[in-house]
Amino acid sequence: MRDVVAKNLRRLRADRGWSQERLALESGLNRTYLSAVERSEQNISVDNIARIADALNVEAAVLFTP
Amino acid sequence: MRDVVAKNLRRLRADRGWSQERLALESGLNRTYLSAVERSEQNISVDNIARIADALNVEAAVLFTP
Repeated sequence: MRDVVAKNLRRLRADRGWSQERLALESGLNRTYLSAVERSEQNISVDNIARIADALNVEAAVLFTP
Repeated sequence: MRDVVAKNLRRLRADRGWSQERLALESGLNRTYLSAVERSEQNISVDNIARIADALNVEAAVLFTP
């Protein structure tokens, strides 16, 4: 499941032409934390999923759609 | 977001006529942990979301759909 979230996060961020720094700024999360999420190395929690979804302006379910 | 997951989890479990004990058995997670998730008191991680989705035989995205 981490891979699905990682793949969707990378795609959604790239679609917006955002750097990881920009996503960190928009979400209030740490850039290195986001980098680990995008490499499937972080067991991200629902609260942080919500922050990222809000920053990207998508439904959280989108991050979990294979 | 915790509320969305909690509401969906309660509904999906009830649809199957499962007790929290049964879901704990099926998912390999602790019953009191699941009870906290269902009360929006647990910041559940993606690995445990995956375990619950597998146990309920649903896509994880379903748990995040408002």
